Amino acid sequence: MGRVTARRRVLRVRDQGASYRPDTLAAEEPMEIRVGGRPLAVTMRTPGDDFDLAAGFLVSEGVVHAATDVAGIRYCAGATADGGNTYNVVDVALARGVHAPDASPERNFYTTSSCGLCGKAGLDAVCTSAAWSVAEDPLRIGPELLTVLPDRLRAAQRVFDSTGGLHAAGLFTADGEMLCLREDVGRHNTVDTVVGHALRSGLLPLRGTVLMVSGRASFELVQKALMAGIPMLAAVSAPSSLAAESGLTLVGFLRGASMNVYSGTERLEPLPVS
Amino acid sequence: MGRVTARRRVLRVRDQGASYRPDTLAAEEPMEIRVGGRPLAVTMRTPGDDFDLAAGFLVSEGVVHAATDVAGIRYCAGATADGGNTYNVVDVALARGVHAPDASPERNFYTTSSCGLCGKAGLDAVCTSAAWSVAEDPLRIGPELLTVLPDRLRAAQRVFDSTGGLHAAGLFTADGEMLCLREDVGRHNTVDTVVGHALRSGLLPLRGTVLMVSGRASFELVQKALMAGIPMLAAVSAPSSLAAESGLTLVGFLRGASMNVYSGTERLEPLPVS
Repeated sequence: MGRVTARRRVLRVRDQGASYRPDTLAAEEPMEIRVGGRPLAVTMRTPGDDFDLAAGFLVSEGVVHAATDVAGIRYCAGATADGGNTYNVVDVALARGVHAPDASPERNFYTTSSCGLCGKAGLDAVCTSAAWSVAEDPLRIGPELLTVLPDRLRAAQRVFDSTGGLHAAGLFTADGEMLCLREDVGRHNTVDTVVGHALRSGLLPLRGTVLMVSGRASFELVQKALMAGIPMLAAVSAPSSLAAESGLTLVGFLRGASMNVYSGTERLEPLPVS
Repeated sequence: MGRVTARRRVLRVRDQGASYRPDTLAAEEPMEIRVGGRPLAVTMRTPGDDFDLAAGFLVSEGVVHAATDVAGIRYCAGATADGGNTYNVVDVALARGVHAPDASPERNFYTTSSCGLCGKAGLDAVCTSAAWSVAEDPLRIGPELLTVLPDRLRAAQRVFDSTGGLHAAGLFTADGEMLCLREDVGRHNTVDTVVGHALRSGLLPLRGTVLMVSGRASFELVQKALMAGIPMLAAVSAPSSLAAESGLTLVGFLRGASMNVYSGTERLEPLPVS
């Protein structure tokens, strides 16, 4: 698997005693995302889908909306003192007419994480800043189909199998077909790489799809789904309070035959509400 | 619990059918950290330990090392359009002679996440930038005592109990006594708030302690532990490759009577290596 995993010598302690043996770990390295040569962000990520990650990050930031917004993506050299290429710096060239993002610290505050600063009003701002709305998305999906998605996601997680733990995000159709799966040490990166893959394949907005994530549903994951036009986010674990106030359908604690639906319940049918 | 949790109406889908009922979610709101009035960073966090979080973040960044480095911490007004205080903006005043951090985007690249850019050399840089070294820390702890820490951490997680899922970090002595526990929707925030509490209590460096986290052990958590002088990091889940290359004792998959030790095995004793 190359740089996706790494081998390390580890001391295994068990009931019977302790012994040294080789172990496989999920690789984690920093990646700098540049736009037009200018540093924008750094994320700790599992190498492997770097161009998708950079593209998806820019979708989340509202910078690009279509494959044609990106003129090119390449690895930069010069990240180390001796000018060697570490493949940890990715530069995105935007198409003519696409505005570069503001790289100031205030940007983070006023356009990304802090959209929730004012609660519901902030979330409305996210919906407005997206290039499309999920409000009218006609997706309808039965609870029975939803309950099989965690197993399908888990079955496709190859790096998880060898390392014993890694975040994953899978994009599914309303029929439960998996369109794309990504694994990463960073929870946000899984979604960015799925969205970036979709952008580069000309699939945005992702109408009629379900995004399934292996962990918690935070506000930032909801925000990323909205920016990609995804009408339903399902998570194995709990959502946070802010995540539950968005316009998409938010499903949490999707385990076995059970789930909690925090918003957008109209997209689940048939549903025997008692 | 005030803003630590939030009540929401949720559709519960079970085998028997679906019904609406109230549910408790972990609160998530953005917090901006300012230094001397200048925006430095935004993090999505569970409100409640905001001053500890801000202080701990500045320890991780290498800005402050002792309680006396901080002249004061306060909530700022003016975050909303009408000037109202949202309690989501925290300003840290540094003591005279303490240098303010560089708030440029490059800062993130060259002093924080990217220390791993060059692999081992980057990690050495982290150790050098810390105000103290854990290399000579005399901590010794038996595997039997380590195996009880996950249960002690879990037993103390009050917000987890009501919301069904939240990250946690606990600081323990070599005798297994819990010194501090923090829960948060953000994994990094749990460690920052523990470290910030320790800083403000005059306890840095945290020699002879074990930091136990509920999830994965990423490079950034290792980095935060090193910056606080913590010689051992133990995690319920997997570490990443980069995390396993540091100078501290890194324990992963700490479950039941089992664990994997990735570095610093000399601090586990007695250890019957077969």
